[in-house]
Amino acid sequence: MRILVLGGDGYLGWPTAMHFSAQGHDVGVVDSFVKRKWELELGVEPLVPILTLHKRVKQWRNLTGKKISLFVNDLTNNRRLYQVFRDFQPEAIIHYGEQPSAPYSMMGRHYAVETQQNNIIGTLNVLYAMLKHCPNAHLIKLGTMGEYGTPNIDIEEGYIDIEHKGRKAKLPFPKQAGSLYHLTKVHDSANIEFACRIWGLKATDLNQGVVYGINTNHTVVGLNTSFHYDAIFGTVLNRFCVQAVIGEPLTVYGKGGQTRGYLNIRDTIQCVELAALNPPSSGEFRVFNQFTELFSVNDLAELVVKAGEDYGLSVEIDHMPNPRIEAEEHYYNPVHKKLQELGLKPTWLSDTLVNEIFDEVERNRYRIDRSLVRPDILWRHN
Amino acid sequence: MRILVLGGDGYLGWPTAMHFSAQGHDVGVVDSFVKRKWELELGVEPLVPILTLHKRVKQWRNLTGKKISLFVNDLTNNRRLYQVFRDFQPEAIIHYGEQPSAPYSMMGRHYAVETQQNNIIGTLNVLYAMLKHCPNAHLIKLGTMGEYGTPNIDIEEGYIDIEHKGRKAKLPFPKQAGSLYHLTKVHDSANIEFACRIWGLKATDLNQGVVYGINTNHTVVGLNTSFHYDAIFGTVLNRFCVQAVIGEPLTVYGKGGQTRGYLNIRDTIQCVELAALNPPSSGEFRVFNQFTELFSVNDLAELVVKAGEDYGLSVEIDHMPNPRIEAEEHYYNPVHKKLQELGLKPTWLSDTLVNEIFDEVERNRYRIDRSLVRPDILWRHN
Repeated sequence: MRILVLGGDGYLGWPTAMHFSAQGHDVGVVDSFVKRKWELELGVEPLVPILTLHKRVKQWRNLTGKKISLFVNDLTNNRRLYQVFRDFQPEAIIHYGEQPSAPYSMMGRHYAVETQQNNIIGTLNVLYAMLKHCPNAHLIKLGTMGEYGTPNIDIEEGYIDIEHKGRKAKLPFPKQAGSLYHLTKVHDSANIEFACRIWGLKATDLNQGVVYGINTNHTVVGLNTSFHYDAIFGTVLNRFCVQAVIGEPLTVYGKGGQTRGYLNIRDTIQCVELAALNPPSSGEFRVFNQFTELFSVNDLAELVVKAGEDYGLSVEIDHMPNPRIEAEEHYYNPVHKKLQELGLKPTWLSDTLVNEIFDEVERNRYRIDRSLVRPDILWRHN
Repeated sequence: MRILVLGGDGYLGWPTAMHFSAQGHDVGVVDSFVKRKWELELGVEPLVPILTLHKRVKQWRNLTGKKISLFVNDLTNNRRLYQVFRDFQPEAIIHYGEQPSAPYSMMGRHYAVETQQNNIIGTLNVLYAMLKHCPNAHLIKLGTMGEYGTPNIDIEEGYIDIEHKGRKAKLPFPKQAGSLYHLTKVHDSANIEFACRIWGLKATDLNQGVVYGINTNHTVVGLNTSFHYDAIFGTVLNRFCVQAVIGEPLTVYGKGGQTRGYLNIRDTIQCVELAALNPPSSGEFRVFNQFTELFSVNDLAELVVKAGEDYGLSVEIDHMPNPRIEAEEHYYNPVHKKLQELGLKPTWLSDTLVNEIFDEVERNRYRIDRSLVRPDILWRHN
């Protein structure tokens, strides 16, 4: 299959590209490196040194003999994007190419507008590029479980059957996102659903939980992926592991009862592959809830404390004031059956896996800037 | 009250500004005239000649002694917008300042992106301007009933109580909009709800039906408003009236069973005033469904045929192929109680009113370009 990975330089994009290439698919990666620019502006960088994407693509070819095509392009540049779609003729498009951080979007007007503009317009351009050059291709779009918020009813996969005043309808599941970043994913979903309904495109919206982990089968030296431990781009379990190793207390925001779906980075790749190998039909907008386990922040903190003890670390927990505005104790029961039905074999969060992250952090601890792990972006302050 | 009308040059914005000024409020209007530029690009113009906004504001002062402050500014220019909010210190902001046409948004990628960028980013800037300079002001945002689509259940006002698997929640009413323009209103609503929930702003989202009519109490000569009869910016009943007078068949798209909420332009102003005089509390995101009557397109066509006969016109109906993708026969029962509870006195659609439009069209028929009334923008063609 010809597979185009948008955001191919990123935490999930790069390992996804390697995986599909290893499986024998014809893979292209698209990236503008704007996320690297944002990192430079904020003074943050991945834990492990990352080669340029140009070098990694060459390295991959040297190691495996397989070619990954590299397209340097910004999704907001529609003319060049059209050229890429015309030349590569993708059959599946894996779309990770968005500003991925909730705190970044909450840093003030400039960042909010940049996030919404980049994500919404970039995705609109992708839809128009598909319509023009590959209307039968399958768009696999990374969304987030955060689109739904934390409603007091079970969260279904994209749609809900509602009975109301004696009548019935199947409608998009109502959403209440928790940041201006999460809202971009809500807006994208609505725009993509429209493109499927009106133009007959086909898409899978993967409402993904919080991803953790640092390695996949292919992230050997020189082919590493971007693991962030900072409070802006780092996800919670990854941050906790770094805090444990460097002797900083685990920063639990508020009461810590915030419960979310989580999955291993290996399972992200597995889920995306399952979606790609089982495409929807034309005109279908399909939504999968993509996670394997539910944890509260307190659960994760306790897990890291325990794993740390076994590893020889003394780990403390700091229940700090919550910089976000969110429910800290709430009902949470999202359905996540569709990927299981397609054959997802979950990688469970176990101590072993946390140890793997501990090891990688130890090897790179000289690179860590301690000042970056505590949050300083407030939801209610600009 | 200090009231700022965004989009104060437009069909609804200008009469709204005059009305609040006549009521003794301190009114400011903001406009960038980008809609006038779009009209020039498309070769369309309002039926009645419109003086510049600068002249109308002076004319208003000459006639009434009342001052309307004019701010020439684009909502996507946040620096100047901040200055306006800082200087004027609005207590209510009536936000009409968006690209208002569904067909315009469906003309291709350029127009879709322009519409989403203009509307979403403009509104984000308004929210940040409020947060910075008037966090206690009341945002009155014009949305559209088209945000909901045509679900098979009754449409509630913004929120719906859902009982699901034995649990209950009050959640945003699910939406399935019918164009990339309508989607901008969906996205705006979600962003504004977030701003209320997280920052404690207060807002009323007016999900408005299709507006018809050409005059209000203040649209005397020299103070007219922009009545469009073209297929891009003209609303359906206004277009039908023009077609009836110039002897063109009424363009019913498809079967004509498409049913929508409608209201007179006078009632738009009445509804906005009711919202302004009865603000929500801080942190509240309130949604009103703003229309007075339901009609199918066939209902309207028959009504115009009949009114035309009485007026001495011979009117034909052309069931042309539908340029849009939409249900042409569907259940439709939206709730619209909240504005009635605040005291809305509906202006019913009667033959008299249609005659008023016929008269105005007759006076200006020399200005009409017949080629502009038939639609040529297809939803499924780019």
